[in-house]
Amino acid sequence: MSNRMNGQWLLASRPQGMVKESDFEYVRTPVREIQAGEFLIRNLYLAFEPAMRGWINPEESYVPPVQIGEVMRSATVGQVIESQHPDYAVGDYVSGTLGWQEYAINDGQPGMMGAVSKIPAGVPPILLLSVLGATGLTAYFGMLDIGKPQAGDVVVVSGAAGATGSVAGQIARIKGASKVVGIAGGQQKCDWLVNELGFDVAIDYKHEDVQQRLREECPAGINVFFDNVGGEILDSALLNMAQNGRIVLCGGISAYNEAELPAGPRNYMQLVIRRCTMQGFIVIDYLAQAGRAIADLSGWIASGELKHAEDIQHGIENTPKTFMRLFEGKNVGKQLLKIADAPIS
Amino acid sequence: MSNRMNGQWLLASRPQGMVKESDFEYVRTPVREIQAGEFLIRNLYLAFEPAMRGWINPEESYVPPVQIGEVMRSATVGQVIESQHPDYAVGDYVSGTLGWQEYAINDGQPGMMGAVSKIPAGVPPILLLSVLGATGLTAYFGMLDIGKPQAGDVVVVSGAAGATGSVAGQIARIKGASKVVGIAGGQQKCDWLVNELGFDVAIDYKHEDVQQRLREECPAGINVFFDNVGGEILDSALLNMAQNGRIVLCGGISAYNEAELPAGPRNYMQLVIRRCTMQGFIVIDYLAQAGRAIADLSGWIASGELKHAEDIQHGIENTPKTFMRLFEGKNVGKQLLKIADAPIS
Repeated sequence: MSNRMNGQWLLASRPQGMVKESDFEYVRTPVREIQAGEFLIRNLYLAFEPAMRGWINPEESYVPPVQIGEVMRSATVGQVIESQHPDYAVGDYVSGTLGWQEYAINDGQPGMMGAVSKIPAGVPPILLLSVLGATGLTAYFGMLDIGKPQAGDVVVVSGAAGATGSVAGQIARIKGASKVVGIAGGQQKCDWLVNELGFDVAIDYKHEDVQQRLREECPAGINVFFDNVGGEILDSALLNMAQNGRIVLCGGISAYNEAELPAGPRNYMQLVIRRCTMQGFIVIDYLAQAGRAIADLSGWIASGELKHAEDIQHGIENTPKTFMRLFEGKNVGKQLLKIADAPIS
Repeated sequence: MSNRMNGQWLLASRPQGMVKESDFEYVRTPVREIQAGEFLIRNLYLAFEPAMRGWINPEESYVPPVQIGEVMRSATVGQVIESQHPDYAVGDYVSGTLGWQEYAINDGQPGMMGAVSKIPAGVPPILLLSVLGATGLTAYFGMLDIGKPQAGDVVVVSGAAGATGSVAGQIARIKGASKVVGIAGGQQKCDWLVNELGFDVAIDYKHEDVQQRLREECPAGINVFFDNVGGEILDSALLNMAQNGRIVLCGGISAYNEAELPAGPRNYMQLVIRRCTMQGFIVIDYLAQAGRAIADLSGWIASGELKHAEDIQHGIENTPKTFMRLFEGKNVGKQLLKIADAPIS
């Protein structure tokens, strides 16, 4: 029996309104021995995304809720440190959905969120949590399959400094959008979008009138609006859509921590007047096509056309605090938490 | 100079909240002589639709607003009683958008809502205001081009006893929907939908819990929701959509007479969770394809597969009152007003 102890963050209670640290509980439990067909993973990075807030509500959404007392669900990358499985060798890097914990035992079988997968040699593991993982795939399929930007289109992205929004906007530009406008909170994020990522314009929703700025910047209307935010920002975009425009519903972070479901988009009948489509999607429906997306995304990274950013915090003790950064608007790019160095070099 | 006087209803003021008779003014003005290239029409029927409420708001929607002092815009059928135009002969029946008045002079050129068109011999003229006119085309293209019902689909229609909804539901059934559910107000309308039009189920929103009834009647979810109403009914449907379902946004009568734009659909994020599409459309975009639609609709009427109904009121003095019937939920089928018998037999 190993003496390893596993630091784990469990869901302690269902948050009322804004999620807080006390909604989770930190415990340390012994790691059992692995059996034939199993392998032991040391998690190195935890990944955070706004949709996780929905996983801890009591209602089933596109996945069952995390139960009280369960390890909080999240994407992870880690390294195999023991193995009795023929396909996973000690030293292999793997990505999966192994949750807020230091160690995990796995058998390679698909779980609720798919199977653990080996990270090819030469690929920086954290990219599997950001631009080459579910986040990048969400941006890719949401923008290309739902948004369908055409050469010359005006594309607007909300939550543009987030992990998904920042990639989605750049993909639109790569596909020939004539103008890419990002909406983000604060001057620092806006400067980053324009100066580093090549967005044409950034609108600071904390200090500017989004509806008026969209009217100024998109006088012929928005062809594609990629929405991560909802609320007033969605309503402002609805008033500025071009005829036959597409709204990609990716997320609605403005409402995720509301105790009561807030009112919906007041201006939704603009979809009729302007003959627009508003369509939701979930990236897990596209996993069979992931290879094509990863090939494209890798190619754009290699050519310098696509930039990515990770906001890396440190220490498993900071796990809930790092999750809360998403809702405090603190992250630029993908929010990650490093909880260990790779034990095997 | 003829001594004909033209009874006309002008827009007198922009309604605040619910439209009322005093928002219009009745005047009588002399009819001038027609000139070369013109013809004089005696209007026989005026047609009413909820979207007209939007035409008298100050904001431009998909057509410019009716101005104060202008004849109120509406679809009409009439008979040519004088002509100096080679293509229009005395006695011809014509459909157009000639407004709330007894007489209109026209030159055959397209106006804002298209050109006056001759009604083929043998076609009852009022059908051009209902099932073979913009109303029927709205149901046809909205259901087929946006809703895309597949064999076996569960289809729900709100405002189902209205002119558009009643046709839309029947088209879904003709196209092989496994179940067609109508939502309407009152037992009489519900009975009509089931007993006369062949809807499988009708839900009386005035006396039943729509959300619960949809859950009971559509346990595997709604594949196509054709919405004429908005508000709580749209929110109830959003909670009962099937994965990859389509919401056809045709109208939102529940909000048309609100002085302030009400809150939007609270449950719109269900579009993400269930990967649904919500799409608006305007029938005028489909006019180039109208021939195909009219051929199909005529064929279904002839075979008895498609039934239609007109609610005919009488007398030009009752014009605003007849318009208000739409918002009082009084009409079953297409709301028309007969203002004259055909002067030429």
